[in-house]
Amino acid sequence: MGKPLILITNDDGIAAKGIDALIRSMIQFGDVVVVAPDKPQSGMGHAITVNHPLRMDRSKIFPDIEAYSTTGTPVDCVKLGIYEVLKRKPDLLVSGINHGANFSTNVLYSGTMSAAVEGAMENIPSIGFSLCDFAADADFSGAQKIVAEVTELVLRNQFPHHICLNVNIPKLPANEIKGVKFCKQAAAYWDDRFEQRQDPFGHSYYWLTGKFQEIETEEDTDLHYINEGYATIVPTQFDMTAHAAIEELKNWK
Amino acid sequence: MGKPLILITNDDGIAAKGIDALIRSMIQFGDVVVVAPDKPQSGMGHAITVNHPLRMDRSKIFPDIEAYSTTGTPVDCVKLGIYEVLKRKPDLLVSGINHGANFSTNVLYSGTMSAAVEGAMENIPSIGFSLCDFAADADFSGAQKIVAEVTELVLRNQFPHHICLNVNIPKLPANEIKGVKFCKQAAAYWDDRFEQRQDPFGHSYYWLTGKFQEIETEEDTDLHYINEGYATIVPTQFDMTAHAAIEELKNWK
Repeated sequence: MGKPLILITNDDGIAAKGIDALIRSMIQFGDVVVVAPDKPQSGMGHAITVNHPLRMDRSKIFPDIEAYSTTGTPVDCVKLGIYEVLKRKPDLLVSGINHGANFSTNVLYSGTMSAAVEGAMENIPSIGFSLCDFAADADFSGAQKIVAEVTELVLRNQFPHHICLNVNIPKLPANEIKGVKFCKQAAAYWDDRFEQRQDPFGHSYYWLTGKFQEIETEEDTDLHYINEGYATIVPTQFDMTAHAAIEELKNWK
Repeated sequence: MGKPLILITNDDGIAAKGIDALIRSMIQFGDVVVVAPDKPQSGMGHAITVNHPLRMDRSKIFPDIEAYSTTGTPVDCVKLGIYEVLKRKPDLLVSGINHGANFSTNVLYSGTMSAAVEGAMENIPSIGFSLCDFAADADFSGAQKIVAEVTELVLRNQFPHHICLNVNIPKLPANEIKGVKFCKQAAAYWDDRFEQRQDPFGHSYYWLTGKFQEIETEEDTDLHYINEGYATIVPTQFDMTAHAAIEELKNWK
């Protein structure tokens, strides 16, 4: 096999520092094509654009890289990348590096991870990378070390069908990250609050804020290992069936 | 216990016929409060609004019902409903009735189902209802019969923790629906295509289209039973970990 064809996207937008870091890591491994949102699309989850048309333009933001910016969501970018740009499935799909953690139930809200889940639905080996640092000017050097390690692992091994990897990286210098742990997503949720404000015209509006709360503390979770200084890899699927509950529900009277 | 407090939302918007049908069914069971998007939010998945502020206004669209329209997504509506409108968790959260099927992997793209999943994360008994008919003037009478049956079941039994129900109803008259099946989500995906058009100014844009494709045909799935004329109930969770894959990945070299 020749060099792998790698499709790159993210949810922070094509101008974010994190996707630049990811591209720099990926050009060592294969031929890179970028299809990314033209603006921040954080928190877009698995949204797709159905109520208005999509636009996609060639971007000159990365010299020497074939890159496109779109008006769509991260999942739209994956679909456009496969069906309009590449006209084939890439050998690898990577999303990120996200500015901010996507461990635990954040996987549901995350555009970064939804892009990877969309790749899994297409049966493409897919990885979402997130650094636990929301700052626009975050230091991605530690993350890039993990990105390289995980990508090497993925290219060397048989990727399971119809899953993707959710990789979270602690906000630490490269030499202080203790290693990589395969584990499960922590049971947690956002204890939401809204901050209500008045606009200059006397109308109220809300900002969503919140505190991340664990439902139960367990050791074999991404949240636990991140707090211990490890990078985490959670194999992530798109089957949301609560299989164990089916028989329980059949007994309902 | 007195009458249950029921929070209602949807993704087709507060003016859709489907939420009107759901409200009419729910007022038989408890006290109803509606918090729904002010415009269609189909395909929004688990998106939340983080990059701009949210607005919420009292709506007069349903006489005698406490109702609010918001500029947000279905998940935003659930959060606003719990934390700003009710200031408590409702006894039941229902979403829909969606104009269009949400079986199989559509659960990931569906705003209707993401609202129910958000309810599950808050440990509220939550149900998403979808009718397999995209038409704006769809006939919801068959769906209303299933909505009543499922709601009675839910109120009579202990609801499992941290799951929600994905209920799909075939496009059939009430007396031709064969019954209700508890089952799993079918393995399928959208084989996407884009229709490229030119705007009057010579710039191209895309519409996402596609064909729904089964990955493997199995009998115990929502897709199978819907095609047989049954309504389906899939217990749905927010743990996306592919647990079986963790050990496999630990063996990667």
